[in-house]
Amino acid sequence: MTTNQLISEIKKKKSFLCIGLDVDLDKIPTFLLDEEDPIFAFNKAIIDATHQYAVAYKPNIAFYEAYGLKGWKSLEQTINYLNENYPEIFTIADAKRGDIGNTSTMYAKTFLEALDFDSVTVAPYMGKDSVEPFLNFKNKHTILLTLTSNEGAFDFQTKKIEEKELYKEVLEISKTWENSERLMYVVGATKAEYFREIRKIVPNAFLLVPGVGAQGGNLSEVCKYGLSADVGLLVNSSRGIIYASTENDFAEAASNEAKCLQNEMEAILKSQLPDFNS
Amino acid sequence: MTTNQLISEIKKKKSFLCIGLDVDLDKIPTFLLDEEDPIFAFNKAIIDATHQYAVAYKPNIAFYEAYGLKGWKSLEQTINYLNENYPEIFTIADAKRGDIGNTSTMYAKTFLEALDFDSVTVAPYMGKDSVEPFLNFKNKHTILLTLTSNEGAFDFQTKKIEEKELYKEVLEISKTWENSERLMYVVGATKAEYFREIRKIVPNAFLLVPGVGAQGGNLSEVCKYGLSADVGLLVNSSRGIIYASTENDFAEAASNEAKCLQNEMEAILKSQLPDFNS
Repeated sequence: MTTNQLISEIKKKKSFLCIGLDVDLDKIPTFLLDEEDPIFAFNKAIIDATHQYAVAYKPNIAFYEAYGLKGWKSLEQTINYLNENYPEIFTIADAKRGDIGNTSTMYAKTFLEALDFDSVTVAPYMGKDSVEPFLNFKNKHTILLTLTSNEGAFDFQTKKIEEKELYKEVLEISKTWENSERLMYVVGATKAEYFREIRKIVPNAFLLVPGVGAQGGNLSEVCKYGLSADVGLLVNSSRGIIYASTENDFAEAASNEAKCLQNEMEAILKSQLPDFNS
Repeated sequence: MTTNQLISEIKKKKSFLCIGLDVDLDKIPTFLLDEEDPIFAFNKAIIDATHQYAVAYKPNIAFYEAYGLKGWKSLEQTINYLNENYPEIFTIADAKRGDIGNTSTMYAKTFLEALDFDSVTVAPYMGKDSVEPFLNFKNKHTILLTLTSNEGAFDFQTKKIEEKELYKEVLEISKTWENSERLMYVVGATKAEYFREIRKIVPNAFLLVPGVGAQGGNLSEVCKYGLSADVGLLVNSSRGIIYASTENDFAEAASNEAKCLQNEMEAILKSQLPDFNS
């Protein structure tokens, strides 16, 4: 998917909501456990009930790997279902990979080619030649960990590296990499005050913002400093939506939660980017 | 496996060789492609032919994920085969994972519990609470990316962070984490001159050293500065051993390559650590 197609979808739905599919068999409605593939059955119901409010879905790969072969099958089913039924939706493999060149190429092929996700999250620690193999794929995107939403972000990311915080160095240097126009960045919502600094370095890039809801981030704070002229944000909520209810009405409850967030986004877009939908 | 068990095995075999199982279907002998599970058939032959010279095996998870369901099955078969037949051998899931707490816990369970590897490689970018979930597992080890062997290592790892290079900060800070005695570190062999600096900070920790052979590292240089009193090194070779031949004699050729490296290690141990085997 091109960035312009993503922006069109945001415009159409008045939403920049990303829904995290972090599926845990202990948390889904128990009646789904009788299904042949309970994880996929859950995802399908959630996707069908929320797709009108969301522009992106983000399966967290750890949750699928944890179930071994069955988990991989559920992941394949989920991405295939999204690509076949909702090709207009942006898909993110939240995998946080990154390795030396030939290994990064393997990971890139897995997520961007074989599974055909639109994007994959990547850790920057190993530098340029660990990220560029992901950037080789046309109309695909690489979402670089920049400033994450956990406490450990302060261990390294906010420390000064040669007079500049590490996360800024990651932003600056990544802009020099080949095909860097395919980069997006993970920026934790719990640190809204950093968005202003980040926008100075990457005024237009899309930022994937986890951590709204369960992790304590605040949507309007994020938007105040994070919105670009083309929105430039994908704000993720996982548990707050997909586990809104664990009863028979789980899909309806998820739909309601997604709708609430979409409404909030629509109001913010109207007030902060009045020209965006015109 | 405890660290002492690993050290005993090193002593017994006079070797600190780790063999990387980066299996690519395009590179294995073609007659193996008729097998039901060619990757496992290849690994089994390589393991049977080299186990007397190696103390560790390191499947590179990217290469298994790339084959989807079949790849995961091959990975399961490989680790099960190792655990059942060679329980004295240290196993490394080279996965380079790392995410927020609950997600890191899922990854840790996958590799250290379900697949029952002895260790897993982890990226430090997200800090303490992204690594500690891996450290919760008793008699398991977490191998932290510190100074990698690729060119991109110079993008961030060797830059000064608050007056200290980032990789040193990673070492220093990781020592304060809970269960840090279960940490090992990835240190690229192409930068032997750094080992002296690293040993000042972690004199006894095990270092996993990729990059000998194909990536240009030099074993005696690494040992000169990297050996601890208990060896404290696991030196990996992947392609140089497993693709020594792509003909019918591939397992024998792998065995010969492994034996050469083991011989070199034995000579180095004898000269640099004369008391180690007594």
